[in-house]
Amino acid sequence: MGEFDLIDRYFRQPAQAMATHSPPGRVALGVGDDCALLAPRPGTQMAISTDMLVEGRHFFADVDPAALGHKALAVNLSDLAAMGAQPIGFTLALALPRTDEGWLAAFSQGLLALAQEHGCALIGGDTTRGPLNICITVFGEVPVVDGQSQALLRSGAQVGDDIYVSGHLGDARLALLALQGRLSLPPEVLLPARQRLERPTPRVALGLALRGAATAAIDLSDGLAGDLSHILAASSVGAELEVLKATDLIANLAHQLSGKTPFFLENPERLDLVMQGGDDYELCFTAPPSRRDAVARAATQAHTQVTRIGRIVTGSGITLLDARGKRLERTFQSFDHFSEAT
Amino acid sequence: MGEFDLIDRYFRQPAQAMATHSPPGRVALGVGDDCALLAPRPGTQMAISTDMLVEGRHFFADVDPAALGHKALAVNLSDLAAMGAQPIGFTLALALPRTDEGWLAAFSQGLLALAQEHGCALIGGDTTRGPLNICITVFGEVPVVDGQSQALLRSGAQVGDDIYVSGHLGDARLALLALQGRLSLPPEVLLPARQRLERPTPRVALGLALRGAATAAIDLSDGLAGDLSHILAASSVGAELEVLKATDLIANLAHQLSGKTPFFLENPERLDLVMQGGDDYELCFTAPPSRRDAVARAATQAHTQVTRIGRIVTGSGITLLDARGKRLERTFQSFDHFSEAT
Repeated sequence: MGEFDLIDRYFRQPAQAMATHSPPGRVALGVGDDCALLAPRPGTQMAISTDMLVEGRHFFADVDPAALGHKALAVNLSDLAAMGAQPIGFTLALALPRTDEGWLAAFSQGLLALAQEHGCALIGGDTTRGPLNICITVFGEVPVVDGQSQALLRSGAQVGDDIYVSGHLGDARLALLALQGRLSLPPEVLLPARQRLERPTPRVALGLALRGAATAAIDLSDGLAGDLSHILAASSVGAELEVLKATDLIANLAHQLSGKTPFFLENPERLDLVMQGGDDYELCFTAPPSRRDAVARAATQAHTQVTRIGRIVTGSGITLLDARGKRLERTFQSFDHFSEAT
Repeated sequence: MGEFDLIDRYFRQPAQAMATHSPPGRVALGVGDDCALLAPRPGTQMAISTDMLVEGRHFFADVDPAALGHKALAVNLSDLAAMGAQPIGFTLALALPRTDEGWLAAFSQGLLALAQEHGCALIGGDTTRGPLNICITVFGEVPVVDGQSQALLRSGAQVGDDIYVSGHLGDARLALLALQGRLSLPPEVLLPARQRLERPTPRVALGLALRGAATAAIDLSDGLAGDLSHILAASSVGAELEVLKATDLIANLAHQLSGKTPFFLENPERLDLVMQGGDDYELCFTAPPSRRDAVARAATQAHTQVTRIGRIVTGSGITLLDARGKRLERTFQSFDHFSEAT
């Protein structure tokens, strides 16, 4: 089976059928020419992000290919969510060690199902033989109102702002530790944790709802400690986090189950999972206390839990406070694809 | 050295300095947030293309990293050229087996020098550890006039149109055959041929100049036979090529040197190089005979040689004609990353 047949069978035809699912009129030309053509709506900016996933680093060789297709697009949609951008389309570049039709069928199914859910059309791509590598570039739209971009940047946090996170953190790392044999989990914890690792939910609806309410946002891919630090550095501010609120974030998997299962993590380990778990694909964002109602409305509208975990202060870096407001001495490492051992 | 330091040192700082070289106002936000933000000019479409380059398939492991940086962007700019799009910016996703600062310095130098030459800003990216893989997605602008996109599509060729190619074809394959030891070339042929293989020139200026003159266009990455076939299929037409004109296209390396060097290729081999050479990154385009003057002006304006090699006819596929207009029976294979042996 040749390259062009392969592209046709698994990507081009479903992509053409799908183009009708993206916001109307945006995809002027999809897969099949030298370039795709997008027609952005007047008065908008185009948000663009690219992520590359490599076997052995971002996923295991034996991962379910449908889950891998889902995740490859989800991590990119998560970047659009963090900007408050409406997904429009994406390109897929794929290096494959061999032509495995079963793998391709499952991978494209997982990928295109999530794409369709978000109205994000596959508009172009490239396939080649090589060590398995998935590179997706995603495109979204952000309105410009009175000359002001409505994009949620990392640089907008102000002293006094509340700090929030969506969903709960640390589940993906919990699953990873179990899959690596470094932790034993009962099935009722492992199964949902593994779902969070392999099929993360990009918080696109929340990002859109937070436009005009949040002052800064980032998506949590490398762990709260490292990713929040990017907001702090870009905004030239510091943060105080309330440890109990932070550790309660993993409530639905590790903490809330503690009455129903023999599995229970002690606080220091739970804090590690929350602060440097990685692969959460939740949003961390800031908003002034005057907009707490607006944030609550956005969360309701997006059907997504958000939790206030601290506040922006002068200075730099993250300070952890216990229930009595006393400083805890802890340092955390951000996940770094080049410093961490393989 | 961590991932973030590495990005900063070789890509982010030069990228920020470079953003001023792209068309004014287009890059609203460059490297450093969850997404980049582009602000397309009103009344334009955005042309998007992505290409993935893999070691051992698209380049040799010992290739000069500066040439590799050049080529990785050049093949993408070539896709913009084939649409008649003005380059604006690009994203770079890079998997590296190790942190080799000498390699990174040379790679980024070659990449960013070509980017600067074309006013194409590096607006975002991703780096990870993994088998060497370079994935670039490039963005360009195409005007829409009276509701009509000015993009040069593959589907616009009309019966009676002339068929042209820019530059000369087969040089890159000539160099590849020599580097693989399948052919012996004198240095005065090998050196310029290798330059064409490793540092191709994207025909961006020609693509821009051809807007309004050409009816269809494609860039030649997989060989004339295969790539012209894409125009024919998309336009539901056939082509007649004049063999002598086609083989004369490689004049400046193989043919013209025949008086000055013992190296000479017989016509059948020259025709193979021209028809299925691959890696040429020239443009193949069509235009009606009534626009021959306009095509000549575009070529002059772009300082690029163009040669008329045939015409569009009814039917399908490519027919080769000899000097007397007699059909030659030859078939050619397109380069296919999955059917060709490694």
